[in-house]
Amino acid sequence: MKPKISIVKIGGNVISNEEKLTAFLSDFAKIEGKKVLIHGGGKLATEFSEKLNIKTKLIDGRRVTDADTLDVITMVYGGLINKKIVAILQKNNTNAIGLSGADANIITASKRPVKAIDYGYVGDVKTVNTSTLLNLLENGITPVFCSITHDKNGQLLNTNADTITAEVAIALSKNFETSIFYCFEKNGVLENINDDTSVIPHLNKDSYSQCIKNGIIANGMLPKLHNCFYALDNGVSRVSIGNEKIITNQQQFFTLLTL
Amino acid sequence: MKPKISIVKIGGNVISNEEKLTAFLSDFAKIEGKKVLIHGGGKLATEFSEKLNIKTKLIDGRRVTDADTLDVITMVYGGLINKKIVAILQKNNTNAIGLSGADANIITASKRPVKAIDYGYVGDVKTVNTSTLLNLLENGITPVFCSITHDKNGQLLNTNADTITAEVAIALSKNFETSIFYCFEKNGVLENINDDTSVIPHLNKDSYSQCIKNGIIANGMLPKLHNCFYALDNGVSRVSIGNEKIITNQQQFFTLLTL
Repeated sequence: MKPKISIVKIGGNVISNEEKLTAFLSDFAKIEGKKVLIHGGGKLATEFSEKLNIKTKLIDGRRVTDADTLDVITMVYGGLINKKIVAILQKNNTNAIGLSGADANIITASKRPVKAIDYGYVGDVKTVNTSTLLNLLENGITPVFCSITHDKNGQLLNTNADTITAEVAIALSKNFETSIFYCFEKNGVLENINDDTSVIPHLNKDSYSQCIKNGIIANGMLPKLHNCFYALDNGVSRVSIGNEKIITNQQQFFTLLTL
Repeated sequence: MKPKISIVKIGGNVISNEEKLTAFLSDFAKIEGKKVLIHGGGKLATEFSEKLNIKTKLIDGRRVTDADTLDVITMVYGGLINKKIVAILQKNNTNAIGLSGADANIITASKRPVKAIDYGYVGDVKTVNTSTLLNLLENGITPVFCSITHDKNGQLLNTNADTITAEVAIALSKNFETSIFYCFEKNGVLENINDDTSVIPHLNKDSYSQCIKNGIIANGMLPKLHNCFYALDNGVSRVSIGNEKIITNQQQFFTLLTL
């Protein structure tokens, strides 16, 4: 039987709230067994872009990343957020190490081809090289990834944190029984977007298809859930979606996804 | 006989010049055997502080680091510069990993006590924990440190890059024959500050004392050289000082320091 690992994605609503972040990291530190944290940081990146007079352009929630914006992303995700998280986890006796995909060449990506939209320095994940990752995990170290990758040709690339989460989890599934926890601002997948308690407790591929047909799941949740089932289709055992309290297993509401 | 390792410190004059940085990293990638890179980035930090309307205050060349300045340091050193260097080294087939002292708890420091001057969030190195460092080096990975440490109590600390270089080199001297290369804007220790070719080729403790008595070495060079002899006194085999070309061993001018 493979050992268990928890892959946790944390979003901007927690990251940019110091109190919430501290509470979350204290919970994260208590997760038993091996674990990986992946963080975004879009809200803070937008704030610093404004301060630096760099215009933020989002298309369907995806950041158009010109050279200046990439610098902000690299500073805010790779520096400010990542190192703060590592320092707080160290305080909580979790031996964290902060990583981008360029570090130890763990995640390579290719710049998204320009079609109707030019997203700029945005990367689509090509490979996850697990050798260093496994070595760190074996030595009791907890990797903390920011959502930056590289093309192995000297170029950093802004990369969707949900995608990185799925790809890292899939890569680790060869060695681990892998659970993903996607933490975001809602309590889970909602039947009624205006009712935070209308959480669908379980979705599999069949009920997911049904929900799409019925129009219950639409818009922003579609790519999120598509990404989750992609992970499940490729070796991940289970995916939980909900607010940041789901990692303690004491949360009433969350959506569990399985095949 | 212990294996050899090169510990290279690179300063702001190279880091903030893209052409020089690319050439330097290409040279660094060619260094045979195990190696570690430590970088500062003061010039860029000052630039971004200005853009963000944060006042830069230096006392004897040391940055007074309030909370906002620490955020800039963490963004610029830990994010922008560190990840760019790692990506360029990966292009040069050097499997680099970017680190602060908080990562894997490698370097702990204590906040400098407030005496006549309050330097703010500035750290004095307490411990260098080599276990993860040795593990990375054994696996062919090249650590790239920014000059940030932590107090193991959740606080990041701005820390002098020359000091980090010495402390990391000293800690690795138990396992390696260690050479430090301090690269800066001059060709070495100069007899005449106005003549770039008046490089003193060799200094040991005796000739160093003599040079201080004669007034040949003064001001900014004193703490730099004090730090070098501190490293030599504590296990480091040799220290070379000069411009960034000294790492290729093809440089006519440099100062070699030994005990």
